[in-house]
Amino acid sequence: MGEAKEKGSLGEQKWRFQGNDVLTTASALTTASALTVRGVLDLIVDNLTKDDPRAVVPLGHGDPSPFPSFRTTAVAEEAVVESLRSANFNCYSSPVGILPARSAIAKHLSKDLPYTLSPDDVFLTVGCTQAIEVVLSVLARPGANVLLPRPGFPFYEARASFINLEVRHFDLLPDRGWDVDLEGVEKLADDNTLAMIIINPGNPCGNVFSYGHLKEVALVAKKLGIMVIADEVYGHLAFGGKPFVPMGVFGSIVPVLTLGAMSKRWIVPGWRLGWLVTTDPNGILKKSGVVESIKGFLNISPDPATFIQGAVPHILEKTKDDFFSRIIGTLKQTADLCYEMIKEIPCISCSSRPEGSMFVMVKLNLSMLEGIKDDIDFCMKLSKEESVIVLPGTAVGMKNWLRVTFAIEPLSLEEGVKRIKSFCERHAMKQ
Amino acid sequence: MGEAKEKGSLGEQKWRFQGNDVLTTASALTTASALTVRGVLDLIVDNLTKDDPRAVVPLGHGDPSPFPSFRTTAVAEEAVVESLRSANFNCYSSPVGILPARSAIAKHLSKDLPYTLSPDDVFLTVGCTQAIEVVLSVLARPGANVLLPRPGFPFYEARASFINLEVRHFDLLPDRGWDVDLEGVEKLADDNTLAMIIINPGNPCGNVFSYGHLKEVALVAKKLGIMVIADEVYGHLAFGGKPFVPMGVFGSIVPVLTLGAMSKRWIVPGWRLGWLVTTDPNGILKKSGVVESIKGFLNISPDPATFIQGAVPHILEKTKDDFFSRIIGTLKQTADLCYEMIKEIPCISCSSRPEGSMFVMVKLNLSMLEGIKDDIDFCMKLSKEESVIVLPGTAVGMKNWLRVTFAIEPLSLEEGVKRIKSFCERHAMKQ
Ligand SMILES: Cc1ncc(COP(=O)(O)O)c(C=O)c1O
Ligand SMILES: Cc1ncc(COP(=O)(O)O)c(C=O)c1O
Repeated sequence: MGEAKEKGSLGEQKWRFQGNDVLTTASALTTASALTVRGVLDLIVDNLTKDDPRAVVPLGHGDPSPFPSFRTTAVAEEAVVESLRSANFNCYSSPVGILPARSAIAKHLSKDLPYTLSPDDVFLTVGCTQAIEVVLSVLARPGANVLLPRPGFPFYEARASFINLEVRHFDLLPDRGWDVDLEGVEKLADDNTLAMIIINPGNPCGNVFSYGHLKEVALVAKKLGIMVIADEVYGHLAFGGKPFVPMGVFGSIVPVLTLGAMSKRWIVPGWRLGWLVTTDPNGILKKSGVVESIKGFLNISPDPATFIQGAVPHILEKTKDDFFSRIIGTLKQTADLCYEMIKEIPCISCSSRPEGSMFVMVKLNLSMLEGIKDDIDFCMKLSKEESVIVLPGTAVGMKNWLRVTFAIEPLSLEEGVKRIKSFCERHAMKQ
Repeated sequence: MGEAKEKGSLGEQKWRFQGNDVLTTASALTTASALTVRGVLDLIVDNLTKDDPRAVVPLGHGDPSPFPSFRTTAVAEEAVVESLRSANFNCYSSPVGILPARSAIAKHLSKDLPYTLSPDDVFLTVGCTQAIEVVLSVLARPGANVLLPRPGFPFYEARASFINLEVRHFDLLPDRGWDVDLEGVEKLADDNTLAMIIINPGNPCGNVFSYGHLKEVALVAKKLGIMVIADEVYGHLAFGGKPFVPMGVFGSIVPVLTLGAMSKRWIVPGWRLGWLVTTDPNGILKKSGVVESIKGFLNISPDPATFIQGAVPHILEKTKDDFFSRIIGTLKQTADLCYEMIKEIPCISCSSRPEGSMFVMVKLNLSMLEGIKDDIDFCMKLSKEESVIVLPGTAVGMKNWLRVTFAIEPLSLEEGVKRIKSFCERHAMKQ
């Protein structure tokens, strides 16, 4: 009864945190977060037909960890177990990450660079996601802008919109193997442009930039006086003609902030262990105050779990090449399978064979499809009719394209693409 | 030589991210992060005398995990090992946290409440730190303010300053066992006040709020129309006369956001597993859009490691009472030791015996000390002369007080307080 009375009086109670202001915050946050891949995929998944007896084929995600062919190496698992059981890493970490982990990452990345990184160049983050949050937050100031690739990874847009950092988009060119439209970059930049972002190997395009193209990127950025933020979360996941070249190789031309993680190469995105590295042999980022800002931001930000950090040296030193080559082999097999099968489907096409990461971009030929309005409509109907989940290109900035993941068990992939084929045949424009 | 030329030309190169703007960001971030306990402790630690043969006695921290008496339970360690080895949790988590973990926390917290929480009331965070970040970010809007306790936990001030959320301080009253100055709260609040924060059991005061006092807090907040944010990261660490009462008990009087973590009760701060819980049986936070904002913010924020989330149900169900009572026993023993020993030191005093958390506030009587300017000076000299680290009260908002941690091996604590005694005797005003 006391209860009931309290409840009753609550009806009339005014709370100061109610009202339009709160709803504005809520809707700003909702807008920002709706831009994430997760947000769009949730809509597509909601449209599945519940009583389809066939298994759902998920070709929308970027996380193959649940599939047996993509199980991480026991070396990594045991390194974490050992670190945990030592009880040496139940404590707080330093805000930049513990020294042994930073040293190991510095050493690991230096192998592919013409100079040696110091542990002080390395900052540990809660996945590559937090590394993106850090760089964008450090650059955000009134009037400033950064250049993002289109198609791209929409978390950049979501975070930038939340902190009021202006973004401008340059194109990746499907007819040139998804190379950067460098002329476009030059036209976009102005006095308030601070950085351009590249993702290599590419999400969503499955492309790998050549040494020569990366050097061109460096020279254009230098000319514009902007830094390069190189998202290398798919680093080393290259299985075509071109090897993976880290952008840091060109760090003496232009200061580079390299973002990475264990998430994709070790297939443990749930471990939330990433890094932000200044690959900048001339120390320009340090002199300009960027490094100080990074430290300041990390001081008031969450850290990755300390015992996972504690396992990093062991993981980086002891993971065997055969694990990496098995994963690369599987990715090459599934990428080729996906590409070849899609070639056989009339109303959709890939502009180039994927050479890296876990995705391929597929173009819809809407004029050959009947009753399909656009990419979102395609994906919603595909989900409902065939229990196949694919990401609409709109979610990554390219309307009427699809992003298809091939990082899944080969048999499921085959089944999924077959269903896409039946779907396209069923919806093909009648002559 | 190409190298040298590049380097030479870099001397004249203009980078757009250089200059005053960047330095402004850097210094704003430095100001925000200097406010953290970590920032202040670093200064004190830097002042240690390198060649003192005695071991450093750390009484400044809030992390007893390195000490054998405070080792976490094997139940928790093994739950994490099992979760990791299952390979079911290498994947991304949902942005709000995985359901089994949220259900387990809802069930766990409901035991102490007069109503039942649902998993949808629970949001997992990267430690309690991120839970603080979430609530402050969700409340931040132009003109708004929140009420913080003084003394308090300076991470609130640091985060609020970074996002331009105004803070106002109410006092905790040493003469009333560190109860909230509720008249002060009423005077501070205005139309733009959205929330008041309480920390219970208290950091830095080592106090525990009574049932009656918490009810008064609830009634004042309701009268003001503001929500209560209850930081219960030290929840259940109560060893005095008063039991720990969660603020959520009064959730039908006033909507409560409860912040917690495994960090302190299980002594695993490095695991970064925390929560934010709406303890709000009338659903006011939901109706007002606060819950939507929390979800939106989490959508674009880092998550705790999935396999640690996966271990939560097992940890909450299986941790034995004897672990908790052993820890409480040790804390009571060290708290009493600390209090009794400090009573014997002339120039410093505790206003009350600590009853919870891991800290006690100690007042400096500067008029009895010679050549000691203030609390920072006291701590700097104590560090240099006695290799004892203590946090100056200034860092937690109370000048000329000290915050002393008793959560350390009893023998080291004794040694540390003895050294504080010699220090005070040596610096005592000559009659
Ligand atoms: C291009 C790109 N960057 C960053 C991330 C986030 O990486 P992490 O899972 O390590 O946070 C992803 C994840 O899919 C990605 O595709
Ligand atoms: C009052 C208070 N709140 C929050 C935190 C942060 O907790 P966590 O370590 O779980 O992030 C601390 C840590 O010392 C604290 O003392």
